[in-house]
Amino acid sequence: MPAKDLFHNTVNNALQKDGWVITDDPLHLKYGGLHLYVDLGAEKILAAERAGQQIAVEIKSFAQLSPANEFHKALGQFIGYRFVLKQQQPERVLYLAVPHEIYQGFLNFPYVKALSEEYQVRYLIYSISQEEIVKWLT
Amino acid sequence: MPAKDLFHNTVNNALQKDGWVITDDPLHLKYGGLHLYVDLGAEKILAAERAGQQIAVEIKSFAQLSPANEFHKALGQFIGYRFVLKQQQPERVLYLAVPHEIYQGFLNFPYVKALSEEYQVRYLIYSISQEEIVKWLT
Repeated sequence: MPAKDLFHNTVNNALQKDGWVITDDPLHLKYGGLHLYVDLGAEKILAAERAGQQIAVEIKSFAQLSPANEFHKALGQFIGYRFVLKQQQPERVLYLAVPHEIYQGFLNFPYVKALSEEYQVRYLIYSISQEEIVKWLT
Repeated sequence: MPAKDLFHNTVNNALQKDGWVITDDPLHLKYGGLHLYVDLGAEKILAAERAGQQIAVEIKSFAQLSPANEFHKALGQFIGYRFVLKQQQPERVLYLAVPHEIYQGFLNFPYVKALSEEYQVRYLIYSISQEEIVKWLT
């Protein structure tokens, strides 16, 4: 799917501009013989820290016509990956990357908003046109 | 998707054989302007009860090659629909319908098993060949 590759590179570049080093593309997880692939793993080391901050990022376009469909898959991925990371890499924080161009419409659906709050979904909002991180919603 | 229609009829028939009356096909939910459609709503009235038992059923084939992909979407749907039902129809119990022919392989993936337990996913196991309910996993 070309659109996925496009957003993949966009988020990759946006994270690097923001000072992150991409360490895993994709981030490969294993759980009981099942292979899972989160889109990106990245690390940021600040001068004052001994260990770096670590994140995992699942990239979403939410470009389809059915926001509920796409959200269900993203919610399942977020919950599943977070479950594995909590056990295997508890220091790594998981985000769903969502384009700034659509996030306000999308995240303001009461259904998406309420479930994101209930299940503490973290979002990284990126600009497609600027290839930049716009904000982190945690 | 013809496969979906096939399994849809299979589960519909299996529920009726088991004494359920299909009341909603699909079960339409609304949440803040977003329309959600759970595959089936059904009701069973036992002689000893004043009110009937009510269920909502989301039908899954898990026929794709990537079990993780399909499971993520199913998990997101289950969590999302259950969230809405709890607020709007708290007496209705939600199930994911999964074919008996594949459920042992599928539900025994430690990833699927662990997440199903963590998030209390309920399954209705049905036989494709017999068009019958095999068991309820709650």
